[in-house]
Amino acid sequence: MPMTPQEIANLVQGEAWAPVCEPGGETTEVLLLDVASSDIATACDVAYVQSEKDLSRLTNCRAGAVLVTRSILANARERFSGWLIGVDAPQEAFVLVMMQFRPAPARRAIGISPHAIVSETAKIGDGTNIHPAAVVGDDVVIGSNCDIHPGVVIGAGCHLGDNVTIHPSAVLYPGMKISDRVLIHAAAVIGADGFGYRFEHGAYVKIPHTGTVVLEEDVEVGAGATIDRGMIGSTVIGTGTKIDNQVMIAHNCQIGRHNAFASQVGLAGSVVTGDYVRCAGQAGIAHQLTIGEGALVGPQAGVKDDIPAKESWLGAPAEPDKQFLRTVLNTRKIPEIREQIRTMKKQIEVLTQQVTALQDLSGNAG
Amino acid sequence: MPMTPQEIANLVQGEAWAPVCEPGGETTEVLLLDVASSDIATACDVAYVQSEKDLSRLTNCRAGAVLVTRSILANARERFSGWLIGVDAPQEAFVLVMMQFRPAPARRAIGISPHAIVSETAKIGDGTNIHPAAVVGDDVVIGSNCDIHPGVVIGAGCHLGDNVTIHPSAVLYPGMKISDRVLIHAAAVIGADGFGYRFEHGAYVKIPHTGTVVLEEDVEVGAGATIDRGMIGSTVIGTGTKIDNQVMIAHNCQIGRHNAFASQVGLAGSVVTGDYVRCAGQAGIAHQLTIGEGALVGPQAGVKDDIPAKESWLGAPAEPDKQFLRTVLNTRKIPEIREQIRTMKKQIEVLTQQVTALQDLSGNAG
Amino acid sequence: MPMTPQEIANLVQGEAWAPVCEPGGETTEVLLLDVASSDIATACDVAYVQSEKDLSRLTNCRAGAVLVTRSILANARERFSGWLIGVDAPQEAFVLVMMQFRPAPARRAIGISPHAIVSETAKIGDGTNIHPAAVVGDDVVIGSNCDIHPGVVIGAGCHLGDNVTIHPSAVLYPGMKISDRVLIHAAAVIGADGFGYRFEHGAYVKIPHTGTVVLEEDVEVGAGATIDRGMIGSTVIGTGTKIDNQVMIAHNCQIGRHNAFASQVGLAGSVVTGDYVRCAGQAGIAHQLTIGEGALVGPQAGVKDDIPAKESWLGAPAEPDKQFLRTVLNTRKIPEIREQIRTMKKQIEVLTQQVTALQDLSGNAG
Repeated sequence: MPMTPQEIANLVQGEAWAPVCEPGGETTEVLLLDVASSDIATACDVAYVQSEKDLSRLTNCRAGAVLVTRSILANARERFSGWLIGVDAPQEAFVLVMMQFRPAPARRAIGISPHAIVSETAKIGDGTNIHPAAVVGDDVVIGSNCDIHPGVVIGAGCHLGDNVTIHPSAVLYPGMKISDRVLIHAAAVIGADGFGYRFEHGAYVKIPHTGTVVLEEDVEVGAGATIDRGMIGSTVIGTGTKIDNQVMIAHNCQIGRHNAFASQVGLAGSVVTGDYVRCAGQAGIAHQLTIGEGALVGPQAGVKDDIPAKESWLGAPAEPDKQFLRTVLNTRKIPEIREQIRTMKKQIEVLTQQVTALQDLSGNAG
Repeated sequence: MPMTPQEIANLVQGEAWAPVCEPGGETTEVLLLDVASSDIATACDVAYVQSEKDLSRLTNCRAGAVLVTRSILANARERFSGWLIGVDAPQEAFVLVMMQFRPAPARRAIGISPHAIVSETAKIGDGTNIHPAAVVGDDVVIGSNCDIHPGVVIGAGCHLGDNVTIHPSAVLYPGMKISDRVLIHAAAVIGADGFGYRFEHGAYVKIPHTGTVVLEEDVEVGAGATIDRGMIGSTVIGTGTKIDNQVMIAHNCQIGRHNAFASQVGLAGSVVTGDYVRCAGQAGIAHQLTIGEGALVGPQAGVKDDIPAKESWLGAPAEPDKQFLRTVLNTRKIPEIREQIRTMKKQIEVLTQQVTALQDLSGNAG
Repeated sequence: MPMTPQEIANLVQGEAWAPVCEPGGETTEVLLLDVASSDIATACDVAYVQSEKDLSRLTNCRAGAVLVTRSILANARERFSGWLIGVDAPQEAFVLVMMQFRPAPARRAIGISPHAIVSETAKIGDGTNIHPAAVVGDDVVIGSNCDIHPGVVIGAGCHLGDNVTIHPSAVLYPGMKISDRVLIHAAAVIGADGFGYRFEHGAYVKIPHTGTVVLEEDVEVGAGATIDRGMIGSTVIGTGTKIDNQVMIAHNCQIGRHNAFASQVGLAGSVVTGDYVRCAGQAGIAHQLTIGEGALVGPQAGVKDDIPAKESWLGAPAEPDKQFLRTVLNTRKIPEIREQIRTMKKQIEVLTQQVTALQDLSGNAG
């Protein structure tokens, strides 16, 4: 449904600045139909600019209207002559507009598909959809308003809360505990055995893993991520923690609340993290380490020591970021160091010759 | 079907050199039945040697016939007395022979399996196979001569071109756009939500992702790879680009044509690559960077800067390859530097003593 | 079923030390119901302490009984007043107790589920379960007592031995060879095409892969791991080798026996390893390299050279561990080196001035 710039402004509680009119020019009515990023937006699109440093994006922007922070409205007007809408938080406002133009499809009420395979001993809550080719094991308990998408396999004895979404082909091994509003993406695997063996008579003997995985409320697990079950107790992912695609979390990890792990991060066994820990892509953390509250682990970092709260570490082996940057800088100083050494060597040679000459002279003199 | 060396030579438009016969020896007729690599080939096998530097492989080779570049036929003869077949491109010729002995099984025409679950509103082209346990959602459009293997899930509204192959358990989220001749391997996931959140009142709030993924013609996606959908617009993989297993491509990336990404490569959000970019295994590229046409990203590289066209970068943080090699070399010079410093220190001490002695002397003299 | 400490001691052939009683105190009878790790164990739990260095864990331990090495019983008693059970190998004894309290659920005999899709030409051994939504292709041969879990896809012509377990949604491409007692975790992919192309007329042309994958006896493959088929011959994983989640093994690798690869390790094509090779998490090995028997590849190592038998390598590019540690140490010496250079520079300046003065003097003197 098309909207006028003023309707958009009302929706986001913003302040609409009409386009600049050339003297004698006509005002064209603008009707907005969709959202787009500022570089490809057309006259029917709403775009947004997050902050002052992105203002240059407005120069060639062809959007019908642009959401900006109120404080930069005047600066924005210098670069962009179309509709401007000043708001407190442009990205948030933009998402609101996006959801207006592209409403999420209503959850379909399919209930238990005749093509799903659901154990007779499973208990399924009201309003929950079990899609075709999903398999739900014995004694599983699923809350209300969940979506179990096609091809999902839920092992015997799993417990799921309400409003849980599991995307296609994800797998829950038996006995997992999944809290309300957890979102698991496609092909993620929750609860495989930890990588634990005894080495005996020249061969690895598997250590049985009888623990489980607990995903607390509002956890999101990315596509292809794997979270292994504990050996005895539980691997726990704290409330609100977000895990990106292809992340690996090994057995017995205790992950705090509101952590964020970017793609391809790997945690070895029994790692403990505080709340609000963030790990950038491809970082790795060795086993049994503790990462303090609010710590930041850099991209591809190789962590082999505990990280204190609030610190930011980089590199492999990882070290505090300032130290790492100094290390990198220092490494790049080596050519200069070698040059200085060459110079000093020559100076020392010259001095040695001169001193020898002086000694000869003074010897002669003596 | 067995073939003679001459028949092989005809097939690959090559030049056959018969085995060297000992004077008075009998020629044994050779019949070839299969292909094998040169180290394990037997008298019934055709092998190949790619180039001059691999000639040593012929010394103990027991193959019935070996394909070599024409220019090295004479050299090859010195090491190998059996049939030699000179061609322009040995590997290409070898593949031709392999396909003769091991023809690809004919595509079976199973049509829509009674064990597949296909929405009534989906449109399926002629000659397309939907295998058992595959799930095809509402309003999906699939072209002709596609293979949708068992366990594949195709979300509502996806569009697939002709001759698309999707291997078992791969997942397309709703609304994906897959062009002709795309090949997607098992357990790959196309179109999961990007990893985007607003941090608000101490928790991550999910940013809805309403964009899609576009796989252009002839793209290949490896097993377990994940390509996230755009937030507003599309994540695009350009024509002919090949993506290996367990590669991660984040939301809104714009990948050029004929790129090649080896296994476990990770691209953060909104990365843009030119055509013919190659990334070696486990490399990572930070968000919003631009990698120029024909650039080469080394194994495990950690890229945090734009890479200009045609450059080759290595290391973490990545730098131009020559600079990186110099850095590595320089780092290995540090022990030598420390030794030089020790030597110079001693020399300076000696000089200082000598100069003091001279000063004393000259003081005395004065 | 509850057990007394003495019954536990009998089970593990251990030596039970009763709790220390305060003079006049009563002995409370202890009944044990489960196992737990020493930090969270309660009075009903059996815990264990692996070695002397973990003795401090006993200080606040509330377990009903603790398994320890016999040699540290006396030391343990100083820190822990409850039941102690001395054994030769505490972890092994602990696993035994765990399996007593938490017996593995008996394998269910479901046979071929009516919801599985099994080709008429497949041969399935006695006692093998094919779970719902599993798909078994033409001419597949499966041994006895196997478990093919829901959603598994087994391509045409695969051969599986006895006692093979394949967890949900794992995929075997056609023609794989899986030996006895192999264990494959969820969403693993065995036999996708290797990443091999010819570059021709500006585009990548796929090289057909007609080889296979051989998993020898007792191999374990982690969740989401991928093992590509050989181009002509086989990718081979040797007897007893254990592969963790999200490991990538490329085409034509020849992996020895009893290797152990931790999570997210990546091997490029045609890597050869001896027996007993271990790779720590996120390590990468470049193509066609040979890793000698018993070698150890460190976490995140980037291997670009052959590694001799029994050596331990670290870093990227990887080098022998002692050399790597020296490199790291040396790099951290650079600030000190720069300081030393500054000092020497000043000393040389002073010396130069002094020598010049002496020369003037001696010139004058002369």
